[in-house]
Formats: sequence, C-alpha cells, structure tokens
Amino acid sequence: MQNFDFYAPARILFGKGTENQVGELLKPHAKKVLLHYGGGSIKKSGLYGAVTASLSGAGVAYAELGGVQPNPRLSLVREGIALCRREGADLILAVGGGSVIDSAKAIAMGVYCDGDVWDVYENGTPVERALPVATVLTIPAAGSESSGDTVITNEEKQLKYGYGSPKLRPLLSVINPELFFTLPKEQLGFGVADIMSHVFERYFTNTTHTDLTDSLCEAVLKTVIKNAPLALADMKNYDAWCEIGFGGTVAHNGLVGMGRAQDWACHTMEHELSAIYDVAHGVGLAVLTPAWMRYVYKDNIQMFLQFAVNVMGVPGGYRDPETVILEGIDRLSAFFRRLGLPATLSDLGIGGDKLELMAKKATGEAFGDEAPIGGLKKLVWQDVLAIYQSAAG
Amino acid sequence: MQNFDFYAPARILFGKGTENQVGELLKPHAKKVLLHYGGGSIKKSGLYGAVTASLSGAGVAYAELGGVQPNPRLSLVREGIALCRREGADLILAVGGGSVIDSAKAIAMGVYCDGDVWDVYENGTPVERALPVATVLTIPAAGSESSGDTVITNEEKQLKYGYGSPKLRPLLSVINPELFFTLPKEQLGFGVADIMSHVFERYFTNTTHTDLTDSLCEAVLKTVIKNAPLALADMKNYDAWCEIGFGGTVAHNGLVGMGRAQDWACHTMEHELSAIYDVAHGVGLAVLTPAWMRYVYKDNIQMFLQFAVNVMGVPGGYRDPETVILEGIDRLSAFFRRLGLPATLSDLGIGGDKLELMAKKATGEAFGDEAPIGGLKKLVWQDVLAIYQSAAG
Repeated sequence: MQNFDFYAPARILFGKGTENQVGELLKPHAKKVLLHYGGGSIKKSGLYGAVTASLSGAGVAYAELGGVQPNPRLSLVREGIALCRREGADLILAVGGGSVIDSAKAIAMGVYCDGDVWDVYENGTPVERALPVATVLTIPAAGSESSGDTVITNEEKQLKYGYGSPKLRPLLSVINPELFFTLPKEQLGFGVADIMSHVFERYFTNTTHTDLTDSLCEAVLKTVIKNAPLALADMKNYDAWCEIGFGGTVAHNGLVGMGRAQDWACHTMEHELSAIYDVAHGVGLAVLTPAWMRYVYKDNIQMFLQFAVNVMGVPGGYRDPETVILEGIDRLSAFFRRLGLPATLSDLGIGGDKLELMAKKATGEAFGDEAPIGGLKKLVWQDVLAIYQSAAG
Repeated sequence: MQNFDFYAPARILFGKGTENQVGELLKPHAKKVLLHYGGGSIKKSGLYGAVTASLSGAGVAYAELGGVQPNPRLSLVREGIALCRREGADLILAVGGGSVIDSAKAIAMGVYCDGDVWDVYENGTPVERALPVATVLTIPAAGSESSGDTVITNEEKQLKYGYGSPKLRPLLSVINPELFFTLPKEQLGFGVADIMSHVFERYFTNTTHTDLTDSLCEAVLKTVIKNAPLALADMKNYDAWCEIGFGGTVAHNGLVGMGRAQDWACHTMEHELSAIYDVAHGVGLAVLTPAWMRYVYKDNIQMFLQFAVNVMGVPGGYRDPETVILEGIDRLSAFFRRLGLPATLSDLGIGGDKLELMAKKATGEAFGDEAPIGGLKKLVWQDVLAIYQSAAG
C-alpha cells in the first residue's frame, strides 16, 4: 500500500425530501447564492420550485444562471463569474448533474482568479481560494457532488480539460433518489458507466497489498451491477436508485482509490471524444473501457483475473486465466449493452478520420509535449490509436 | 434504505513517516497544543520525540498531559480541562489509541463547559463548541481517530458512558502502521475485536435494501479477518498492519452504517464489563459478540445467513440456514481464539455475582429508567442477563 492523504469533507444528506432542507442548511454559510442549473428539466419537475422555496423560507437570497449543457462550456463559466462578482454571491448552489456541478466549481474558483479561469485548467495552477459549492444532485453519475474535480470544455479550442483541488470539494450535497425517477432511460446507462469507470480507474493498478480498497471497489461495482437493471426495469424503484446514487458518491469521493496507483487512461481517451464529437461522457467510457481492458489485460493477469471472478462473477478456472478474463470483459460489454449503451465508435457515428489526431491529443503528442497516459500500462499515442481502432466497430 | 446524513471531515494522513508532518499540518490551526498521551510507551518508542520535534520545528508550542489509562478516567479529563484553560491551548493533539483520543475529545468540549463535563455524558446535552482535536494513532482499534464519539469512565460512580457529536470529529488523524510493530501481541486481538465490532454493530440490521453498506461492511470484515493472522505471525508485517489500520478507520467513520438501523447492544453490554471489571473493551466484545449472535440470530435468519456465507466463508447450504449460521458463529469464535482472545467471562476472572446488576444497568432498569437496547432484536434486562450467562463459561 502506498502512503495516502484522504480528505472527503462533503456532508452528504441523502434520502426522500432532503432537497427541502437546503435553505436551512446553507443559511449559516451564505447570504446570497448563485443558483446554477442546466436546461428546463428542474422547472418541469418542480425541483426548481422546491429549492427556491427552501432558500426563500430560510431567508437566503439568490441570483440564478441556467443553461449549463452536457460537457459544460467555458463561455457560460465566464458569464457565471461576472454574475457572481456583480451580485456579490458568496456560495454557488449547483442543482443538476456533473456538468452543472463542474461548471459551478469553475465559477467558484474563477471569482478569485485575476486572469482567465481557463488558465487553471490548461496550466494546473494551484488554486488558493474558491467560493463554497453546494449541490442538489439530479443524476447519479459524475460523482462531482463529493469530489474536488471539475472538467470544462473550451469550445473554441475543442479542448476538454480537468482540474482538481481540495478547495473545490462541495460543502454539502443533497441526494434524493426520487429525483432520478424522471430521468430518460438512456441517462441511467450514461450514469452507471461513469460511476463504474470512476471505480475502474482506481481499481486497476499494479500496486500490491491493497486488500481493503480492492474489496471496497468490488463492493461498489457489484452493487451498481445488481441495481442498474432493477432501476431500468422500473424507473421508480427507489431502493435501486438509492444504491446507484450512494454508489456514485462513494465511487468518486477518493476512498476507493487510497493507497494505490490509479489509471485514468479511459477518462483521458474519452475526453477527446467528448471534446470533438460532444458525446456524453458515460457513453464514451462504455465504448472505450472494454476495448482498453482487452488491450492491457496481459500486463497484469492476476488483477484482471480478480476482476473477472470477484466483480463479473465468472467461475474460477484459475489455471486458464485468460479465458476467465475475456469472459469477464465480455460480461461487462453485455452489461453495458443491456443498459442500452452503444458498443462501438461507429454506433456513435464516429468514423476513423480523427482517431490519430485524438490519440496524439490525448497523449500530448499533438502539442509537442508527449506524456504517456495510464497507470497499469503506460500508453503512448500508438497504443491509444490501437485502442480507438479496436473500438471503432 | 433509510435517509442518512454522512459527514466525515477528518483528514487521514496515512503511511510511513507521516507523524513527522504533524507540526506543519497543525500550524495553520494552532498556536499552542495540549499534547495528550498515555503511559511511557511513546517515549520508549521514540514517537514522543518525533512528534515534539515536528511541533517545535513548525513553531507550534505545546503543553503536555500524559497518564491516560485504558478506559479513560474522568479525573484526568478534569485535569486536562484545567490545564488547557491555564495554558491557553487551542487544539488537543492526542498521541495514542482510542482511550487517549476519547480523553482528548472530553477535554476539548470540557474547556467550553460551564459545569462538569460528565453532565454531557450523563445527560447527552448537545455540545455547541469544542477545541479541535488531532491524533497520531498508536493502535488500530477504537476508530476514534475518525469518529465524533468518546467514551469516558466515571471511576467514582463505576459508570462508563459514551457521547457523540459532529463537533468532536478530529480535524486530522495521522496513521503510520509502522507504529503498530511494537504493540504487545495481545493488543492486536483487542484492536481487531473492537474494529470488527464497530462493523457488526452496523451490519446486523433489519433494514432492507442496503446492498452497498452490506458489501462495504463485508469488505472491512474480510480484510481484517485475512490480515490479522498475518500481522500476528509477523508483528512487523507492514502490509498487514496497513489493512488493519485503514480498516479500523473505515469501520468507524460512519460510512458503513449509513441508511440502516444499527444495533450497538454488544457495545452497551460490554461497557458494563469495562466499568466494573476494567477489562479491555476489545476483550469484552470478543466474549460477548458470539454469545449475542447465538441469542438473537433466529430473529433475522437471512441476515445471519449472509454473514455466515459472505463474511465467514461457510459454503452455501441455503436450505439449512441454521447449520450454516451456527458454523459461521463458531468460525468467528475460533478466529477470536486464534488471536489469543478469551472465550468466556470466566476466562476473564468474572464470576456470576454481578451479572444481574450489569444487565439492569445496561438497560437502565437499575436506574428506574428502562430502555431496551439493540436494534436487530430489542433486549430487556432478562435478555441481557441470559446473554451474560451464556458467555459465563
């Protein structure tokens, strides 16, 4: 086990009706919040009304900025920063999914940036200050409600970059699984693929003696694998959504990756898809992850054997590990298909013309700054290209 | 799943050499700390020197109070409160195990109490303020390094009471598993029994649809069951101690009990043993837990079947669950014995004369204020007496 530093201070208020407590809970922390959200769905569902009533009831003022899109845009972030400064908001309340929360975090730190907030994403400049962020989650997926991470798309430059800092961990996240009942069915698959990827990126490691985090990873994965089909069959299955929602938060608050080298190659490869083709993050991950597994498993047979047996439930057969591993990966692919997720890049309408460009961007080669990606296996641009090609379909 | 509120803000710095960072890490939070510890072992081991050098190197002043005993005493707590006030300490740094940390928490809130801090334990008065607490852990057991709980013994009244508040969660806990190498072997068993009990008290529940927390509980239990014998066989097995140390923290930071009714009958019954006979908490738990299991399992056959199969590894046989369950409990007893733990109260030199008194104290009957204990099965004093008697040996 490696040394680690675990810090997950976000308070998670979980369960039925919890969105109505948001005003009282934020009152000690804020006089005026920026209410940040996406399209109109929270108005249709009544959530907007519940949250604003809770704020007003507690005497917390608010300004608002809607319009966050999937793969949240830098332009709206800049608008939010200007609005916060103008209105004197002292907390950002994100009501939405990962895109809204990531956008809120960008605004929260941008308020204190002298220059352009994009510099933080591009150069990784350490952030000293940020406004506090709170969230009301509307889709279990990104785990942004418990993490200090944010990913923003610079639409002019076709770049999608992430940034992380303990300063960006939300103060409070409210998760009411009833709010997931009205999600479109396809969003369930997107979210589950994202949650599972957050665990996979931590699970697949060459670090040895990581029994507890191995088991914690497996706990989250098995819980999600069991419950996602239940929620898909009945989108009002509260118990199943509870497990997915709780799992999504545990998947990304840092715990399951402590003490182990992490991978994150699939996330890096996926960001290229989203930046250029604007595909949903979870969809890209569902296509790339099995392709990545088939490309790298020979570098750590025992790790992938454990995955196949402990997570995907392939019966033993330890003397023929490759058969067990390939069956495990096939089961994962079948699970993603069962959730309605596409299996290949061509299913997403993505042709082969930009694969080399994306591979070179993902590894920095395109910018004359090559750095292999991944932890379990270091991938250079030719490896990434081979994975994209194997996922092409 | 029930609604829940999860808040575990303690920063956990884990691994080799981390105790040397304590001064720098506390510097932003404290000008003068009260260094609180137990007997002389931290001086012999060199830890006292490392911590004080780290504090001095960072320019953090300290006063000190040693002498905390297992089952920490109210009298020393009162002494610590007076010392903190006199010295103007603004943070308590506990260097030790659960007893030292629990004593530090009592001092931390006692500093702001107008009356006697014992009133908080006796009456559960909510605490508004407490000094921040930081810890350097010397034995993985109590989980107090990540929890908001404290248990103090009032030696005059022969009472051992617990109290919990989010205000008492440590700011920072430093865990270097190398510090466990010099523990007496018996302490390993005490600690492991305590860790497992913290999980059991949360695991055994009648709440349904708790897949994730079921699996997280099982992850901690299986990790500890695998690694404790490895550490016992080689007390310098760093990897094994890492798993036990990390497991002890996850066991008690609240996570594995979220969304489920909890039990805590074994802890309540054990506090009576410790209060009267001054036995180590983990020893009492190791004796009482299997006895409790045999007394209550019929009230939730499926829960105990899952325990026997998923945790203790008893092969299926689901059509004959009682056989599987009893084999699971026997395996747990055997595991405790393998760690050198006693199996009966008579092994501890405890006779039958005070069992009824303890049963009546545990359930409040002795004070004319009867409240059944436990969650999975509500236990009145006659039940508790029957469990004590079955553990008598």
